[in-house]
Amino acid sequence: MAKQLMDLTENEEFEMFVILKKAEKRVAKNGKQFLAMTFQDKSGEINGMYWDASDEDVEKFTAGTIVHLTGKRESYLNSPQIKISSMSLPNADEHLVRDDFVQSAPIKIYDMKAEIDQIVFSITNATCSRIVRFLLKRHGEAFFEYPAAKSNHHDYEGGLAFHTISIVRLAEHIVDQYSGIDAPLLYSGALLHDLGKTVELSGPVGTTYTLAGNLLGHLSIIDAEIVEAADSLGISQDSEDLLLLRHMVLSHHGLKEYGSPERPQLLEAEILHDLDEMDASIMMMKRAINQTQPGEFSDKIFGLDNRRFYRPTKTE
Amino acid sequence: MAKQLMDLTENEEFEMFVILKKAEKRVAKNGKQFLAMTFQDKSGEINGMYWDASDEDVEKFTAGTIVHLTGKRESYLNSPQIKISSMSLPNADEHLVRDDFVQSAPIKIYDMKAEIDQIVFSITNATCSRIVRFLLKRHGEAFFEYPAAKSNHHDYEGGLAFHTISIVRLAEHIVDQYSGIDAPLLYSGALLHDLGKTVELSGPVGTTYTLAGNLLGHLSIIDAEIVEAADSLGISQDSEDLLLLRHMVLSHHGLKEYGSPERPQLLEAEILHDLDEMDASIMMMKRAINQTQPGEFSDKIFGLDNRRFYRPTKTE
Amino acid sequence: MAKQLMDLTENEEFEMFVILKKAEKRVAKNGKQFLAMTFQDKSGEINGMYWDASDEDVEKFTAGTIVHLTGKRESYLNSPQIKISSMSLPNADEHLVRDDFVQSAPIKIYDMKAEIDQIVFSITNATCSRIVRFLLKRHGEAFFEYPAAKSNHHDYEGGLAFHTISIVRLAEHIVDQYSGIDAPLLYSGALLHDLGKTVELSGPVGTTYTLAGNLLGHLSIIDAEIVEAADSLGISQDSEDLLLLRHMVLSHHGLKEYGSPERPQLLEAEILHDLDEMDASIMMMKRAINQTQPGEFSDKIFGLDNRRFYRPTKTE
Amino acid sequence: MAKQLMDLTENEEFEMFVILKKAEKRVAKNGKQFLAMTFQDKSGEINGMYWDASDEDVEKFTAGTIVHLTGKRESYLNSPQIKISSMSLPNADEHLVRDDFVQSAPIKIYDMKAEIDQIVFSITNATCSRIVRFLLKRHGEAFFEYPAAKSNHHDYEGGLAFHTISIVRLAEHIVDQYSGIDAPLLYSGALLHDLGKTVELSGPVGTTYTLAGNLLGHLSIIDAEIVEAADSLGISQDSEDLLLLRHMVLSHHGLKEYGSPERPQLLEAEILHDLDEMDASIMMMKRAINQTQPGEFSDKIFGLDNRRFYRPTKTE
Amino acid sequence: MAKQLMDLTENEEFEMFVILKKAEKRVAKNGKQFLAMTFQDKSGEINGMYWDASDEDVEKFTAGTIVHLTGKRESYLNSPQIKISSMSLPNADEHLVRDDFVQSAPIKIYDMKAEIDQIVFSITNATCSRIVRFLLKRHGEAFFEYPAAKSNHHDYEGGLAFHTISIVRLAEHIVDQYSGIDAPLLYSGALLHDLGKTVELSGPVGTTYTLAGNLLGHLSIIDAEIVEAADSLGISQDSEDLLLLRHMVLSHHGLKEYGSPERPQLLEAEILHDLDEMDASIMMMKRAINQTQPGEFSDKIFGLDNRRFYRPTKTE
Amino acid sequence: MAKQLMDLTENEEFEMFVILKKAEKRVAKNGKQFLAMTFQDKSGEINGMYWDASDEDVEKFTAGTIVHLTGKRESYLNSPQIKISSMSLPNADEHLVRDDFVQSAPIKIYDMKAEIDQIVFSITNATCSRIVRFLLKRHGEAFFEYPAAKSNHHDYEGGLAFHTISIVRLAEHIVDQYSGIDAPLLYSGALLHDLGKTVELSGPVGTTYTLAGNLLGHLSIIDAEIVEAADSLGISQDSEDLLLLRHMVLSHHGLKEYGSPERPQLLEAEILHDLDEMDASIMMMKRAINQTQPGEFSDKIFGLDNRRFYRPTKTE
Repeated sequence: MAKQLMDLTENEEFEMFVILKKAEKRVAKNGKQFLAMTFQDKSGEINGMYWDASDEDVEKFTAGTIVHLTGKRESYLNSPQIKISSMSLPNADEHLVRDDFVQSAPIKIYDMKAEIDQIVFSITNATCSRIVRFLLKRHGEAFFEYPAAKSNHHDYEGGLAFHTISIVRLAEHIVDQYSGIDAPLLYSGALLHDLGKTVELSGPVGTTYTLAGNLLGHLSIIDAEIVEAADSLGISQDSEDLLLLRHMVLSHHGLKEYGSPERPQLLEAEILHDLDEMDASIMMMKRAINQTQPGEFSDKIFGLDNRRFYRPTKTE
Repeated sequence: MAKQLMDLTENEEFEMFVILKKAEKRVAKNGKQFLAMTFQDKSGEINGMYWDASDEDVEKFTAGTIVHLTGKRESYLNSPQIKISSMSLPNADEHLVRDDFVQSAPIKIYDMKAEIDQIVFSITNATCSRIVRFLLKRHGEAFFEYPAAKSNHHDYEGGLAFHTISIVRLAEHIVDQYSGIDAPLLYSGALLHDLGKTVELSGPVGTTYTLAGNLLGHLSIIDAEIVEAADSLGISQDSEDLLLLRHMVLSHHGLKEYGSPERPQLLEAEILHDLDEMDASIMMMKRAINQTQPGEFSDKIFGLDNRRFYRPTKTE
Repeated sequence: MAKQLMDLTENEEFEMFVILKKAEKRVAKNGKQFLAMTFQDKSGEINGMYWDASDEDVEKFTAGTIVHLTGKRESYLNSPQIKISSMSLPNADEHLVRDDFVQSAPIKIYDMKAEIDQIVFSITNATCSRIVRFLLKRHGEAFFEYPAAKSNHHDYEGGLAFHTISIVRLAEHIVDQYSGIDAPLLYSGALLHDLGKTVELSGPVGTTYTLAGNLLGHLSIIDAEIVEAADSLGISQDSEDLLLLRHMVLSHHGLKEYGSPERPQLLEAEILHDLDEMDASIMMMKRAINQTQPGEFSDKIFGLDNRRFYRPTKTE
Repeated sequence: MAKQLMDLTENEEFEMFVILKKAEKRVAKNGKQFLAMTFQDKSGEINGMYWDASDEDVEKFTAGTIVHLTGKRESYLNSPQIKISSMSLPNADEHLVRDDFVQSAPIKIYDMKAEIDQIVFSITNATCSRIVRFLLKRHGEAFFEYPAAKSNHHDYEGGLAFHTISIVRLAEHIVDQYSGIDAPLLYSGALLHDLGKTVELSGPVGTTYTLAGNLLGHLSIIDAEIVEAADSLGISQDSEDLLLLRHMVLSHHGLKEYGSPERPQLLEAEILHDLDEMDASIMMMKRAINQTQPGEFSDKIFGLDNRRFYRPTKTE
Repeated sequence: MAKQLMDLTENEEFEMFVILKKAEKRVAKNGKQFLAMTFQDKSGEINGMYWDASDEDVEKFTAGTIVHLTGKRESYLNSPQIKISSMSLPNADEHLVRDDFVQSAPIKIYDMKAEIDQIVFSITNATCSRIVRFLLKRHGEAFFEYPAAKSNHHDYEGGLAFHTISIVRLAEHIVDQYSGIDAPLLYSGALLHDLGKTVELSGPVGTTYTLAGNLLGHLSIIDAEIVEAADSLGISQDSEDLLLLRHMVLSHHGLKEYGSPERPQLLEAEILHDLDEMDASIMMMKRAINQTQPGEFSDKIFGLDNRRFYRPTKTE
Repeated sequence: MAKQLMDLTENEEFEMFVILKKAEKRVAKNGKQFLAMTFQDKSGEINGMYWDASDEDVEKFTAGTIVHLTGKRESYLNSPQIKISSMSLPNADEHLVRDDFVQSAPIKIYDMKAEIDQIVFSITNATCSRIVRFLLKRHGEAFFEYPAAKSNHHDYEGGLAFHTISIVRLAEHIVDQYSGIDAPLLYSGALLHDLGKTVELSGPVGTTYTLAGNLLGHLSIIDAEIVEAADSLGISQDSEDLLLLRHMVLSHHGLKEYGSPERPQLLEAEILHDLDEMDASIMMMKRAINQTQPGEFSDKIFGLDNRRFYRPTKTE
């Protein structure tokens, strides 16, 4: 395979195709405009500055463009950075496509759909099953396209579904290992817990928070939709099953400080919270370690209290 | 007016009619049963122990019973306490009624209804107005009967409506004094902010939390009902007015630690939170000071970080 | 009215008179000097960089100077910024005066004095009244000129008096709505609570903290002055009225973390704290929203825990 | 199976054999001595007071004694309590043995030993493997007998080994589901993480903290033993494997506030912490829910921030 | 020397003279009155209950009375307790005096006065020296009689002066060991830092907080008195020396949370805070360890975050 | 003595020899490389930028080089900064040596060794004495060369030993002033408390954290070495003296949040913590004040919660 961004070592010179994840026009202290860029390929992303950009450059090099990049990988304040030698649009006959440059869930959407179907099928509780089906149907398309977050972890196309599947897989192990867990409730909570992100976030590309996302948060968004679903399906608002499912979703951030209006008060709600947090942590750590040389500490990880993680020298 | 509980001074002997707010059977260390009681009249409440209660006593002296009480007001661990000399049921010809003994909102329900009507009438925003009317209609009866809390403040019949009215009155002053406030939004938020308590709490007497109250909290309860109301009224879930109103309700506890999934991000939401807190504080302080002798500090007030408040010697 | 700074939309070109609120000489990375400027008029303020400033420019364009500015309103890191085309001193015959460019209290000093007089007149408690008069006399001039803070809110000429008046107006509403409040004490506390700022701050222009301000804080400053006033007036240091008034002032920050050596332990002290905080919050929110486009979130407000506030699309 | 303590419903009268977990002599306010008791069988435990205990009773009914108990299950302050009718020693021919009354790990020691052996066998890293074997050999007996805690969870014979096995099982799932995890390091950390409890705690019965436990804590205890083991085995103190293993153990409480001198800085250390916490939480919740009636909330769980957990009405 | 309270071992029977530190009438659950007592001698204090107290007993055994006590030292909830066998007033010819039973500063007042004089004499800064002399003269008598606290540490006659002297002695060492410290400022701050306690507390016996103590705190009390002293002495309120001295006193609690309106911002102020805290800690630990058997942990010390301290087996 | 860096006043032009503490190559926004430098001499250090550095300059001006510097002391963002006019290597005949430019402990190593020997000699407890000697022998050389920290305080050659000696001197005063302190334990704890820094830090120059330092921390490092020492010396791991000494070291950060796995539970451990903190604070304050003009506030001190400290105008 051709060399990729994350394969470059310090001070290595290179040429390769990359996609522009970000290309922001700014004005330097000397009054000239430049482009603050983020280059991306499947392996990861690195920043770089395109100095003295002409108006034509600004128009040509926008976010989402695939470019041919010649440069050198340097360091700036301990972070890798590209010193650009030259940058140009690829020839028309290169046939490069966006999907070869952006990160996406490690499972194909087709397979994720199948796995989700199977889980839904295993939910034996009628109330839970009907509501889950109703809401997955409403948000189905977005569910398999959206990221699970604006940044930090699972912040790529399909990230939401992949994060959900990871949690369900862990949940299945927990159900196997410990007795007395209400599996249908746990799986239903896992499937719906982040579904409100299809309303909270703007979409898979250039993800931002929507107004509803900012003012309500994805917990309240999906909670109200569960109530609407029950109305549509003729399920009583007093049904204990419904209350339990709403509680699963509302409490899954674990702490009020993190936006859950109530802390988990069900065995299954506490487990869902733990698994959610664990899957996110592992993803953040793996990404950070991946971008770190053996024998070094990673950058600070914002989502993990700014800790740095060590990549042992022997890590395979 | 006849002497009431709060009029008694230390070591004063008395006889009067009171209502039993609480009458819990317990077993003393010597194995005999006794009744842990709370006596109440319009002026306030004091605890007392009814030692060596016979089975007949237990049956006769239940919560809600009006009794003729002879005793002495003493102190126990700095709190007033009644030493009971004798206690008996009133004669049949006494014609005593519960309403003369329990605290209730200082405004008549009839007047509160009129005042609420007037406020609703003043809401010029169609979306807000229709949702407020819809939900007040659904919970109208409970709204005027329920307390605003299980204890601490406004914990009596009509307390919810009275607390709501107090906030609206303050809000009207704020709207007068400062320009640029969206009055219809502020009033709508004030009217709905605690309406979920009609589902969170069990009712005006012997108030406890319901299962929905424990698992969802009154913020999420009313938020989902606003969404349901919009569905019923054909208001789009994407309407900005609707989002703003939902935000008013969800954010009114001010801090995530206090159960708001989002902090106030609207001028009107922050004001609602401030007024809610201020009205509750004033009520708690006034009650505590009322039960304190001039020149003394009150008991610790739980809802105000366990502070004691001083009643100056000269307070009229 | 002529177009003002806050009326400019993104990328709009303009020429207008403004005052230089700040004009700091700095050295750019290329070794040339430039002026970091803040332009101000009644509508608000925007930053801009004056590149390649000559020594003559530095001397000419100092803080407080009124200039004729030609430029373009751009954005830098989400904040508005002026790109300067040209800048010059106004002709001698323009007759521009500072007061037409800087923000000041929305009420005339003359009217504020009248309103304060009326409040003082209403204080029926002799001890409070005498001390308030004594200290207002001592700091009277500064009281009507100083800002209420170095930045954040009421940070303009007359801000201190205007903030005080706003609180008193709210206090009058509270006294009307709730019974049992010691109005003279509440008004006296309101009038004196921030008076120590006339010693803590350096003055209305280029406001900084004085040494006394840094080492003592305005609470201890005014507290000691109340004691001095009592000495001068022959009021006993053991007078309960005096203790209560000192407590009002010392406790008005509400929390020890915010510099109050004691938390409020009087009904009136807690109310004063609540009103002080509410008036400051409303001012900060209104200013931030004012500088925000409809449908957007404001900048983070430092004094409100870095929250951003949303300006609804429909705000009039 | 005969009725057990946890099967009793409120106010049910019963007779059964139980073991005395606690029998503390105290003096009542009337000067008479009584025994504060905790009755236990495999299903759980309930408190009860044995009033007016004679000196003979005190001598006869000590902790660890199996008794024949007649009484009634009542409630005291929302907790179940036994009202004792009579209590006597069993006849000599009853052949009752302690192991039939006390809780123990749900797996037999023999099977736990086999499972631990298998895990140790799977540790392919020589440094880790040798140290784990060395220390398990040193503390082997205690490891399979000690509880994992003084109270809260796994506080019974074999609890330490069972808790360790539970974590390893979860760890195996994690290794399967996520790539890039150093399995030998994770398993070694899991096996050693709580082994210092064999020094920190006094033993499986009447467990208290030892002086070393109080002054050093089990993290520092086992950390120093790992260093000693390396010395004995000729492993260099600078070996990266050794540092990583020490870090696994020292950081497994996750937060400094919880006694870890360093927070996890390895992927495997963070995972170990998460799994440790999750297994403990599940055990605490299951026990509390088990002692709760369907449709009720459990007692507050100290180890889970005093939350109560709800047992749904339908729980099978 | 005769055996004293702290010399008694568990279950030891004894007879001795003690003073009643506390003798509170209470009513037992069986309706009979008893006296909750605290017995004290120079060695320390222990609680005990005097059951079935007659009205005559209540009158006879009041706080401050010296009694002849026969009893047994037992334990109750891990705290020592006296089981009273008999208690009587001493014969008239016993000539027992209060001072032989209550704790007091380990230095005679006469010697403390001499040491304070010497320190004052060494203050070479005129402003500081004059203010210190002025205020010590005003509160001189109380300064040598008052305790330094209501409880916890130095809570005995002369405790305030003794605590002050201890800090000054430490300060002298610090001045010797480190260069660049303003000794007159440090000593003046040390002498005045707690002098406000002569107004904050009610006196050496049965110490409570005064109204001024509750509403103002001893920091603001002495700060205002420093200002008054300066007025009397003709020292300008703008004198830097005066500001520094006020800051020393106002900041000596170190943190705003502990009631200092400003945190230390002078080298000498930070040192004063550290020494104040250290002396108090050492006193609390020494007292707790003194009341603990070798090889045991002390009771929890409230003033040290409820830590228990260990008394090693070998402690001489 | 020749003028030094800290003697320069704002805008003063100068020429002098200094050592380069830092010389980092960076790339300016205009694409040219420059050197971000820290100049140092015995008096302190100041930053400066060397613009348009040639490749030759980069090679020549590395950290540790002594240079002849001509320039002007200016200010940048309130911090002093050197504007470089010219910079060159000294002539070969200048005979300048590093030790004349870098800060070091104010006592000679020879004298520090003698003082440490004397302290060790005074430790009368055999267990403590033997372990202290063993470990000082192992780390003796590093102990007298290493700094006590990477920055903030005692961050120079010999800083570790000097900090240790300062604490022991304070400890001697404490032992004199208060009775009942176990002096050998306190001195032993003081000598060993930071000795793990010889493993945690990389060395006296260009100090960084080692891998062991990052993953274990100096508390656990020295704790394990104490255990190894005991093994080597045949001291039982159950010896109470050993447990106490380990506790001294493990608890000396005082709070779990600061990395102590257990909080101090010995009188001597609490004292060690207090003295450690006080010596560090005084050093940080003295350095900051030293770099501040009279009548000004220092920069924020990171290690003291970002407080600024005031240097009075009169400070000698």
